[in-house]
Amino acid sequence: MLPFARVSIIGLGLIGSSIARAVQIHMPTVRLTGHDADPSVRERANALGFLDDVTDTAGAAVTDADLVILCVPVGAMGSVAESIADDLPADAIVSDVGSSKASVIAALEAALPGATIIPAHPVAGTENSGPEAGFASLFHGRWCILTPPAGAPEAATERVRAFWEALGANVELMEARHHDLVLAITSHLPHLIAYTIVGTASDLEEVTRSEVIKYSAGGFRDFTRIAASDPTMWRDVFIANKDAVLEMLQRFSEDLTALQRAIRWDDGDRLFDLFTRTRAVRRSIIEEGQDDERPDFGRSHE
Amino acid sequence: MLPFARVSIIGLGLIGSSIARAVQIHMPTVRLTGHDADPSVRERANALGFLDDVTDTAGAAVTDADLVILCVPVGAMGSVAESIADDLPADAIVSDVGSSKASVIAALEAALPGATIIPAHPVAGTENSGPEAGFASLFHGRWCILTPPAGAPEAATERVRAFWEALGANVELMEARHHDLVLAITSHLPHLIAYTIVGTASDLEEVTRSEVIKYSAGGFRDFTRIAASDPTMWRDVFIANKDAVLEMLQRFSEDLTALQRAIRWDDGDRLFDLFTRTRAVRRSIIEEGQDDERPDFGRSHE
Repeated sequence: MLPFARVSIIGLGLIGSSIARAVQIHMPTVRLTGHDADPSVRERANALGFLDDVTDTAGAAVTDADLVILCVPVGAMGSVAESIADDLPADAIVSDVGSSKASVIAALEAALPGATIIPAHPVAGTENSGPEAGFASLFHGRWCILTPPAGAPEAATERVRAFWEALGANVELMEARHHDLVLAITSHLPHLIAYTIVGTASDLEEVTRSEVIKYSAGGFRDFTRIAASDPTMWRDVFIANKDAVLEMLQRFSEDLTALQRAIRWDDGDRLFDLFTRTRAVRRSIIEEGQDDERPDFGRSHE
Repeated sequence: MLPFARVSIIGLGLIGSSIARAVQIHMPTVRLTGHDADPSVRERANALGFLDDVTDTAGAAVTDADLVILCVPVGAMGSVAESIADDLPADAIVSDVGSSKASVIAALEAALPGATIIPAHPVAGTENSGPEAGFASLFHGRWCILTPPAGAPEAATERVRAFWEALGANVELMEARHHDLVLAITSHLPHLIAYTIVGTASDLEEVTRSEVIKYSAGGFRDFTRIAASDPTMWRDVFIANKDAVLEMLQRFSEDLTALQRAIRWDDGDRLFDLFTRTRAVRRSIIEEGQDDERPDFGRSHE
């Protein structure tokens, strides 16, 4: 039995359009409606054909839905929720895909008092944005974290779990604050650091931009992928999850200062010990199926 | 005409064994000898068959060579050079593949007075180590930087250039100090940061190691690849290129502190501006053929 019959997706970028495409494949009888604030995105979504109906307003997309998924930057969740409040069916479940959860829950509860809210975070994506970037298999084998607020009906959580499992994801439940801490280290801090170093490299005077590009295969290019992620989405994440990000950043900075000191004082043993430990983490990630085992990300060497 | 007829490779890990395999394919008449300080590596190299002769001492590997390439960690260059000094033919060219150049030149010149030294740095590699990890196409389309010391014979530099071009690399000449600055930002600092954040994540109390692994697809896993690189090689690089690494690290830390402040004060515009600039760097790297354009490094989503 399908967990939902009529799904509405608000925000038709990489994630929203991937969910729609995945629903088309895994639950083909589900009726899919959607909306995006950008008229050009609505037009392209229409042409791409991953929805049954693209509506001109957010409200019109939800009138008949039993699941509404907000796929917009976390800073826009509150205002988007307000824009659907009048049209939302009383028995619809409202979910989202935001990368930070405590602030999103607060925004949704304020905008939609009395609604059933089951927040979700599919830990999946690419560096590309927009409705053209989505694809149906994006969530296969990836984790989707649900953070139901205290008092949320268990049956609603189980329906959202069934939905994500049908799209190929593994589902885990987590308390919102803990989610925000976990993702601060596994996602938010890595993005912040990648953005920073790409900026640092661009601003040097002694090393030209063209040299940075040419010799990027020494390691730098890995960081540029993440630093090509959607600017609006990530601006919002850092501000929405400020406390946890600043906490993790503080720890990172302390550790970096310790390594800086080890380099200055030729403390090779300290460096060697760390570099040996980190190698084991990579092995675990591959063993757990969370990354490809092919060397160099399987980059082509033709 | 082949630039060299008898090539000797000292150090049979990822890079040394890749050079040997590439020579076998691109210059099959070249006689290849080699040595590794580790008897187990010598045995495996023999079995893998990428050399005509694996010798028990470094000296025995170079007696007849017209090109000797030292493929050992940069901290070992001096002692390895000393170990071949007595057997090195007077007209042989000595080269290396180290990731830092000024300190390597100093070590080689001290150990091999009067020898023709043409240092090289192929900017290529994977996170794997050892003779099994090498492959012939590793240098295809990658850059190899030569840093001939002042007074090095131009003809020798041109022969080493022809050698690397025959292996499929693009060759660039650079002054050693400038090389060390360029690589500090495009390679050494990225490795240092990756090692640091993987260490930070492993040491948290509030977030378990298993959570870090499970949710690593949010960005963290990208860093673990680089942080799985050879510990000995990288320990040596940071100490050998200390000044340039500390200089780049200082700039990075300043930029990170500025972003930390922007997050603390909700300065979304500053974040957005940087995140937009960094996206352009990624585009340039793809346009210049220095990375794959497939999203998410072309990771499989089966």
